[in-house]
Amino acid sequence: MKVAEPTVERLVQYYRLLGQLHEEGRRVVSSQQIGEMLGIKASQVRKDLSYFGEIGKRGVGYHVDRLYEHVMTILSPPRVWRIALAGVGHLGAALLGHTAFKSEKFHMEALFDVDPEKAGREILGVPCYPFEDMAAVMGEKKIEVLILSVPAAAAQACVDKAVESGTVRGILTFAPTTVVVPEGLLVYSVDISVELEKLLFYLKEKEER
Amino acid sequence: MKVAEPTVERLVQYYRLLGQLHEEGRRVVSSQQIGEMLGIKASQVRKDLSYFGEIGKRGVGYHVDRLYEHVMTILSPPRVWRIALAGVGHLGAALLGHTAFKSEKFHMEALFDVDPEKAGREILGVPCYPFEDMAAVMGEKKIEVLILSVPAAAAQACVDKAVESGTVRGILTFAPTTVVVPEGLLVYSVDISVELEKLLFYLKEKEER
Repeated sequence: MKVAEPTVERLVQYYRLLGQLHEEGRRVVSSQQIGEMLGIKASQVRKDLSYFGEIGKRGVGYHVDRLYEHVMTILSPPRVWRIALAGVGHLGAALLGHTAFKSEKFHMEALFDVDPEKAGREILGVPCYPFEDMAAVMGEKKIEVLILSVPAAAAQACVDKAVESGTVRGILTFAPTTVVVPEGLLVYSVDISVELEKLLFYLKEKEER
Repeated sequence: MKVAEPTVERLVQYYRLLGQLHEEGRRVVSSQQIGEMLGIKASQVRKDLSYFGEIGKRGVGYHVDRLYEHVMTILSPPRVWRIALAGVGHLGAALLGHTAFKSEKFHMEALFDVDPEKAGREILGVPCYPFEDMAAVMGEKKIEVLILSVPAAAAQACVDKAVESGTVRGILTFAPTTVVVPEGLLVYSVDISVELEKLLFYLKEKEER
């Protein structure tokens, strides 16, 4: 079963919303309500959830807690991912403090930086190592996922070190460049320039209409 | 003409690559070469470019400079966008220093922050104003695009202030939450949690296969 990327993205949105509703102590929610809160059509919400076997009760909706648990299980395995981050500049620091990494699903095991002031220290409770030791440390600590927040010029060298470790299986890169990886290694790229250009493109398009 | 989002994303990638080739002084490039450098099929490259009227010469390819100019014109108008950024924490600082904003197409006019240490000062050459003055300052400076790098809890209030300004037309948000905007206002969201969850989802899927 290959789930399309927009579907996964919506699942993550359902998951986050259900987490909020769960916190608020809410017991049921309808596809209509989910749709309104997320800006997604109710029919799309029903289609997505029924695909994974969740059928809401007509006139009642879904049980928040059950649906929350279910979406969580669909999204990621009940285990902790061992992750590392390369590049502890402003962006790296922002990521370290980001709620995304405060989840119990991840454990940040190591940081890497070229700056000798940073390597050798602990930053926000995580040990920072010099760039040269990246492959060895990642292999030792069995890092599965690498977060890349280095400048464009350093991205490929980091990816090569990560591949050398033999344990990395996925990379989330914020570097504004394209990196080459061996087949089988998953790479997701968050490119701020691309997002900004997309926004401007559509603004221009609207202006012309 | 409504251009699909993945197409726009590829156009941005072509644009960036052509910029690099242009800098290197390269004169021609084939769809095959573009495809290889970006991990896109050559047939897709040809299809995308011919859609906008660019036909490469068989056995020669495209003229780098002409194609670069053309893709730039398609992507965004020959004018400077007036942008502002709310939230000058680690992420905001990372964005301010990001190559995406070093382009001649943007001019960062104002920053906003709740921290009284920051408001009233200039940060990296840009004046920072208190959050309360956001609507007024944005209106005065005719800000068209707002970059949002505030915590989730502050996102909606910032969006409301931006809407109040009357001049904002697009928002690029990095806040890990959903915001409500009036119809007609474009919002792009870069959600780090979503990207990370997507990566883990596909890693899990591969593990199960």
